[in-house]
Amino acid sequence: MLITFEGSEGAGKSTQIRLLADTLRARGRTVVLTREPGGTDFGEEVRNILKHAPYGDRLTDEAELLLFIAARAQIVREVIRPALKRGDVVLCDRFTDSTVAYQGAGRGMPEDFIRSLNTFATGGISPDRTYLLDLPAEVGLARARRRAEAGAPADRMEGMQREFYDRVADCYRRLAAEAPERIRTLDATLPPEAVFSHIIADSIFR
Amino acid sequence: MLITFEGSEGAGKSTQIRLLADTLRARGRTVVLTREPGGTDFGEEVRNILKHAPYGDRLTDEAELLLFIAARAQIVREVIRPALKRGDVVLCDRFTDSTVAYQGAGRGMPEDFIRSLNTFATGGISPDRTYLLDLPAEVGLARARRRAEAGAPADRMEGMQREFYDRVADCYRRLAAEAPERIRTLDATLPPEAVFSHIIADSIFR
Repeated sequence: MLITFEGSEGAGKSTQIRLLADTLRARGRTVVLTREPGGTDFGEEVRNILKHAPYGDRLTDEAELLLFIAARAQIVREVIRPALKRGDVVLCDRFTDSTVAYQGAGRGMPEDFIRSLNTFATGGISPDRTYLLDLPAEVGLARARRRAEAGAPADRMEGMQREFYDRVADCYRRLAAEAPERIRTLDATLPPEAVFSHIIADSIFR
Repeated sequence: MLITFEGSEGAGKSTQIRLLADTLRARGRTVVLTREPGGTDFGEEVRNILKHAPYGDRLTDEAELLLFIAARAQIVREVIRPALKRGDVVLCDRFTDSTVAYQGAGRGMPEDFIRSLNTFATGGISPDRTYLLDLPAEVGLARARRRAEAGAPADRMEGMQREFYDRVADCYRRLAAEAPERIRTLDATLPPEAVFSHIIADSIFR
């Protein structure tokens, strides 16, 4: 079972993933956690390049997109596919929808091309379920600011403007409307326990 | 003017690039040299990942392809386009044809998809001329072996079998046949000075 978590920074993806992993493990399931980019030695190096390398600011949008996709191609083959084959539950912090939302709607690169990159990277595997943690721009940007003040790095990916935020969030909502059987939208302004109660009530966990 | 050099390892690309750069500079032209992957800070890091990183052997073909393309997207925007805009001559050690030959014919990834990646990475710029240094498999593999014995690293990209070598060389020949107005095939078994005499006689340098 492949489950992905999507949404803007500060929407609470990590918390929900931890809650779900704990619950599934308590039920005896083997759970594999991944994050994108990252999750493999190669992916972590890609993450480092994207976030902290000195040339990060000079990295073109095109190279950034291709790095994300390269990391995805690697993690699918090195981690996700073998885990699915073993029957594990795989929980991904971001996956294909992030690329459509951030690099497509956010940075303006062609969505059709991004979809063909996603298909190539995943070799056709698709999430069984995606939880979209939806947050109004005001709340999301305020949370991101608080994180930055609290010492979390205001890195390249999180240093975004209101207009960019809106484009990403609108794209996520459109994707959810296009794939209602896969994507469940959750109100991320609710307390984490309330958000999680919706997730764990999902029929796929029965 | 964008000029690319293609061909198998050991075909003498570096030598011809040096000879051409020296000659053009002596004529007062500004020459920019690039190599792929590499040629930018980011590209050199990609090169390092591909050649020497400990996980290099575990890197999937898909991730490898996307890394090459990411490095190309970066070098086009950071180096090649600005140089062409200034009126410089750009000499590239490998470019789009390498990806079709090595990752397409060599590793068996879909050529159509690779072409769409190339178009995305280059933003549509195309070499004004490509020199294909053509070498029979026996000679090319023997040269590669001598290089390895002489201490040059027998790295991931050069550690190839005869069958792989043939697929790459055959693909290069097909590409040359498909684009005779752009690609000039040169017999790389000739002495370097003889190969270069064909290059410098090219009408684009008059």
